Amino acid sequence: MILTLTPNPALDLTWRVPRLLPGESHRITTSTRRAGGKGINVARVLHNEGVDVLALSTRARVGGDEFEADLEAARLPHRLLPVRGVLRRSVTVVDEASGEATVLNEAGQAPSENEWRDLVAGCATVLPSATALVVSGSLPGGSRSDYVLEVIRAAVELGCPTVVDASGDLLLGAAKAGASLLKPNRSELAATVNTDDPIEGAHRLLELGAGSVVVSLGEQGLLAVGAGRPHTPLALRDGDPLQARLDATLEGNPTGAGDAAVAALALGITAGDDRATLLRRAVAWSAAAVLAPVAGELHPTHPHLLDRVLFT
Amino acid sequence: MILTLTPNPALDLTWRVPRLLPGESHRITTSTRRAGGKGINVARVLHNEGVDVLALSTRARVGGDEFEADLEAARLPHRLLPVRGVLRRSVTVVDEASGEATVLNEAGQAPSENEWRDLVAGCATVLPSATALVVSGSLPGGSRSDYVLEVIRAAVELGCPTVVDASGDLLLGAAKAGASLLKPNRSELAATVNTDDPIEGAHRLLELGAGSVVVSLGEQGLLAVGAGRPHTPLALRDGDPLQARLDATLEGNPTGAGDAAVAALALGITAGDDRATLLRRAVAWSAAAVLAPVAGELHPTHPHLLDRVLFT
Repeated sequence: MILTLTPNPALDLTWRVPRLLPGESHRITTSTRRAGGKGINVARVLHNEGVDVLALSTRARVGGDEFEADLEAARLPHRLLPVRGVLRRSVTVVDEASGEATVLNEAGQAPSENEWRDLVAGCATVLPSATALVVSGSLPGGSRSDYVLEVIRAAVELGCPTVVDASGDLLLGAAKAGASLLKPNRSELAATVNTDDPIEGAHRLLELGAGSVVVSLGEQGLLAVGAGRPHTPLALRDGDPLQARLDATLEGNPTGAGDAAVAALALGITAGDDRATLLRRAVAWSAAAVLAPVAGELHPTHPHLLDRVLFT
Repeated sequence: MILTLTPNPALDLTWRVPRLLPGESHRITTSTRRAGGKGINVARVLHNEGVDVLALSTRARVGGDEFEADLEAARLPHRLLPVRGVLRRSVTVVDEASGEATVLNEAGQAPSENEWRDLVAGCATVLPSATALVVSGSLPGGSRSDYVLEVIRAAVELGCPTVVDASGDLLLGAAKAGASLLKPNRSELAATVNTDDPIEGAHRLLELGAGSVVVSLGEQGLLAVGAGRPHTPLALRDGDPLQARLDATLEGNPTGAGDAAVAALALGITAGDDRATLLRRAVAWSAAAVLAPVAGELHPTHPHLLDRVLFT
C-alpha cells in the first residue's frame, strides 16, 4: 500500500464565470467541489489506476464532514485524524472566455501540538505496512515542519521509500532526513536553494542527503538527478541528469499535473522500474492530468501518451 | 418583532490578497467568514441597533452547521428550516493594493417543493407576531418566486408591513401582491421594468400594486416614490418623489449598504416615522455600512451621519 500524507487538506472549488472582471460582481454559472490537497490528488490518481493506496490527512471540525463524504463517494481509502478549526478552501476561477484559471488558496489553520502528535502517531501505525510514503503539499498556516519531518524520518528508518513534493523548510528538512525522492517544481526549488539552475539546485538537495531529485519544469517536462546512496531508488542511482518531456505542448488545466507526476514516481519506485520507464510514466501521467478537467484525474488516453515522451 | 426572510442564505467569505492577478495563483493573507445573505445582513443591523428581530432562512445539510454556529455566536435570533444540499458561498476578494473588491457568488441549490412548503409554513407561524416582514435577496438557483410570494401575500393579508429587496420576477410579483415598500437598486429596477429612469420605473411598480418604492442610487442616495393606498406606509403616502443623499461620497465597502438601508426603512415604517426621518436614517445607515468593514454592520459614528443627509 502506498501511503500519502496531506498535511494541509482543502476543499477544492472550481467556479466558471463568463469573464473574470476585477472589481465587478459575478454570478457563478458552474461550480464543482471536491476534497483536495496535493496528497489527496496523488492518492486519487493511484487509486484510479488500481494501485493500493491509503490517504492520510486531517478532518476539520467545520467542513470535515463534506471532505470525508467526498472521499467516501470516490471510494478512496483514507484515514482522517480529527482537528479543530475550519477546512481551508482553494478556489479556481475559470474565465470561460479566455480559459484562464485564477487560483485563490486559503492558508489553512495550524493544528495544535496534540493534534500534530496524533497525526504522527496515526502515520506510525500504518507506515510498517506501506510500500512507499508520499508527503505532498504545503503546511497549514504557520506550522513548523518538525512533525511532518518526524514522519519522514520514521519512514527512512523503516527503509520505506519516501517521495516528498514540498518547498522551503519542509523540502530542505526532507533532504537532510534522507528522503528517497524529492519532487519540487522549478520555482519552488529556486526559492528554496537560491539558484535558478535546476541541475545545480538538485545537487544542493543531494548534498544535504536526498536520495534523488526530480524537478518538474512545466512544459519542459521532468529532470531527474540521482545519487548513489543506499536510500536512492534503484532507478535513479545514475548520477547523470536525464530530462524527459512530451513531444508537444498540451492545452489544458495544469493544476494537478505535478500530483500526477508524483503518483507515477511513487508507483515506479515501488514497482522497481528502470529510469526511462519511471520518467516516461511520470511525464505521460502529468500530461494526462493537463488534459483532464480536474486535479486528481488522468485523461483516459494516457497509455498512448507514453509513446510521445522524448529524452534529452 | 421584525421578521426577515432570506430565501438564499450564503457563507460570506472575505479574502484579502496583496494584488488580484487574473491567471495567477494567490495565497490568501487574511480570511473572514460569516453567515450571510441579504436578509441575514438586514437582521444583523437591526439586532445590533437593539431592534427585536427574527431571521428566518434555511439550514443546508452541508455547511448549515457553520452557518448556524455563526448566527449563535452573534446571538442573532433565528429560525432555520432544514434543506438538503450545500450552502452556497459568496466570496469577496479584496485587492489590498487598489482596495477594489471582486465578488463571486454561487447561485445556491433550489430547495425541493416540500422544503419550500416547510419554509412557507414556518413563516406563517411567526407572521402574526411580526411588526414587519422583510424579504431580501435572490432566490436559490432556478427557483420560481411562487413560494416567497405566498409569504408576502400572507403578510399583506394580515396587514403586516412588507419590505421587499429583490429583482426580476420576485420584484414584479411583490408589487402585484401589494407589498408596502419595494427597495430595488437602480440597475435591478431598470432590468426588471425596462426603463433607465428610476422615477418612471418606480411608477411602474406602483401601478402594479406596490404601496411605495425606494430606489437605491449608490452615491446619489435614495429616491422615494409613494402611493396613496391603504397599504402604503404612512410616511410614504406623498406622491412627490423625494431624494436624499449624503453630503459627500464615502470611501469604503459598498457591500451591505443596501441591506442597511432596508433595515432602516423597515424600522422607520414600524416606528411610524415621517418621510424625512425615514429617509434620513436610511441614508445614514447605508453610509455607515460603507464605512464598516463587513456587511451587516454599521460604523459606530452613524448617529453623526444623520446631520449630513441632504434632500433634493
